[in-house]
Amino acid sequence: MRATVLTAPGRVGLEQRPDPVVLEPTDAVVEVVAAAVCGSDLWWFRGDNAFDEPRRMGHEFVGRIVSVGSSVRLAPGDFVLSAFKFGDNTCPACRDGFTSNCAHGGYWGAVDGEGRELDGGQGERVRVPLADGTLVRVGATVTEELLPHLLALTDVMATGVHAARCAGVVPGADAVVIGDGAVGLMSVLSAARKGASRIILMGRHTARTDLGVEFGATDVVAERGDEGIARVRELTGGDGTHVVLEAVGHLPAYEQALGVVRDGGTISRVGVPQYTDGPVGRTLFIRNVTLTGGVAPVRSYIDELLPDVLSGAVDPGRVFDREMALDDIAEAYRAMDAREALKVLIRP
Amino acid sequence: MRATVLTAPGRVGLEQRPDPVVLEPTDAVVEVVAAAVCGSDLWWFRGDNAFDEPRRMGHEFVGRIVSVGSSVRLAPGDFVLSAFKFGDNTCPACRDGFTSNCAHGGYWGAVDGEGRELDGGQGERVRVPLADGTLVRVGATVTEELLPHLLALTDVMATGVHAARCAGVVPGADAVVIGDGAVGLMSVLSAARKGASRIILMGRHTARTDLGVEFGATDVVAERGDEGIARVRELTGGDGTHVVLEAVGHLPAYEQALGVVRDGGTISRVGVPQYTDGPVGRTLFIRNVTLTGGVAPVRSYIDELLPDVLSGAVDPGRVFDREMALDDIAEAYRAMDAREALKVLIRP
Repeated sequence: MRATVLTAPGRVGLEQRPDPVVLEPTDAVVEVVAAAVCGSDLWWFRGDNAFDEPRRMGHEFVGRIVSVGSSVRLAPGDFVLSAFKFGDNTCPACRDGFTSNCAHGGYWGAVDGEGRELDGGQGERVRVPLADGTLVRVGATVTEELLPHLLALTDVMATGVHAARCAGVVPGADAVVIGDGAVGLMSVLSAARKGASRIILMGRHTARTDLGVEFGATDVVAERGDEGIARVRELTGGDGTHVVLEAVGHLPAYEQALGVVRDGGTISRVGVPQYTDGPVGRTLFIRNVTLTGGVAPVRSYIDELLPDVLSGAVDPGRVFDREMALDDIAEAYRAMDAREALKVLIRP
Repeated sequence: MRATVLTAPGRVGLEQRPDPVVLEPTDAVVEVVAAAVCGSDLWWFRGDNAFDEPRRMGHEFVGRIVSVGSSVRLAPGDFVLSAFKFGDNTCPACRDGFTSNCAHGGYWGAVDGEGRELDGGQGERVRVPLADGTLVRVGATVTEELLPHLLALTDVMATGVHAARCAGVVPGADAVVIGDGAVGLMSVLSAARKGASRIILMGRHTARTDLGVEFGATDVVAERGDEGIARVRELTGGDGTHVVLEAVGHLPAYEQALGVVRDGGTISRVGVPQYTDGPVGRTLFIRNVTLTGGVAPVRSYIDELLPDVLSGAVDPGRVFDREMALDDIAEAYRAMDAREALKVLIRP
């Protein structure tokens, strides 16, 4: 089968790989119907994350089960969503609601506990470990119109929900969202769904911030850094907001979050930090600022979000502004890296 | 009057200062009945906090009002508790419950908005700015027995409550408390009051950890660093605890907290960080660990805690294991610095 492989920074393309087969009783093999390119894929593509070996890419996919191991309750033919990390959904961390920290889980495209290469989502098929814990059956007719919304649940929508939930957004809350990428826009949507009355979106790309306004942003601040902080403070009577959802991951974005959060407020991060050390001492402490967020436990949220997607109550798939064939995967990365595309839906 | 002044690291003693008088309509002057030496005073005493000018010391005191400004509702003769920072208790941060981040507040012993030196609590009298926001009338007969418990409310008990509240301790929760100083012991007491069913106290001083056990600790771990982390993991089936209350402030204590917190858990800091930068990127993010806590908003908690102190339901004053005269203030600092005393009650 064809599968996306990143061989070096900036060099991504298709390679032939063996068709996956069931190796464990808990495995399923899924035929990918649609996959996505994620902002976090670009960290690898740009060389910001170091790697020695060629990497299988993609962690957002939906598709149809073609075969299952002997202990799997899902069945061939089921149309399923995958969480962006696999896991058993039964271990203590999973039961706590942190399926992204499953004791037996891991990342697509890495290696499993036996040292076997795992498929990525940007390919024709995927062997899914711990299938009953990882996949969710859609249980409805999957129309073309529905497809992008389902795909958004596999990562970005759930990640936005995680940002808002960790931050404790309540009706009437005020929030800043840093970042106008797909996760930033989903953070806006999630804060709005939780009843935030003011949502200030910090981003410079008008097409994206316009979509953010449709998702519920009440203000847009295009400035960055000190200038952006000053603008947010001006908009909030000098105090900043109780909640900041940080959906970028660079150190300057975290520093910007520190600049716009109100004393006693909460910074919730869902952009993967591209830094190790940073301001964590009195900067947070003296101001009673809480720092929360992390890798979104997608599987924990899908059951709650899926009905709203199926009913049309929420339309997260609007973040997909381009669709390409799997054969054009290199172009998909290029377009997203160049910020010509917000998020690309890939058809194998 | 006599007032405690720190002139250089390790050099603390009494000096004569003018008797304070009411300078603003919102001021009160309090005659100190009892004051305390705080673990955080020792940061200055040891030279860990740099300072150029002699510093007036002490931020924990109770006493009797001797005079008030024209707009103060409290009255001469009232026996009052003071919060360890002064503030108006009416600004937006105060209304959010963060009186320690009052827009018009500040620290004892520093300078006020007009550049005037502020008294510290370790002296005979204190000019209290924003008296109605800062002081709480006890409204009961203050017996000798009651005195240390009231004094504990001015900082350490409220700080323990802040640790437990920020961490979201719920009935049945499991917690690690790092530090067997007064704040660590108050964190144990506060976690127990919130119904934590397991409280692992990390500390090496048997007399202190014994008191911790009386306050509700279920386990004591004397080991530190990697050895201490391994011991806590062993006690918790390998996972660590959902909640960690960090009551020390050194970077190694924060690193220890990272080592014993469970994935998806919360570290709540109430030890003043003695570091600026530290692990704040993926260390927290990948594990979905929340970092919270800060300077305790004592004033926000006193109303809730005072009735339980007056009724005897809670006895935080047990952390005072020594009592000395104000004239012996240098000996009080020495004894606490040498860890001969846990916490000293000072009588002017």
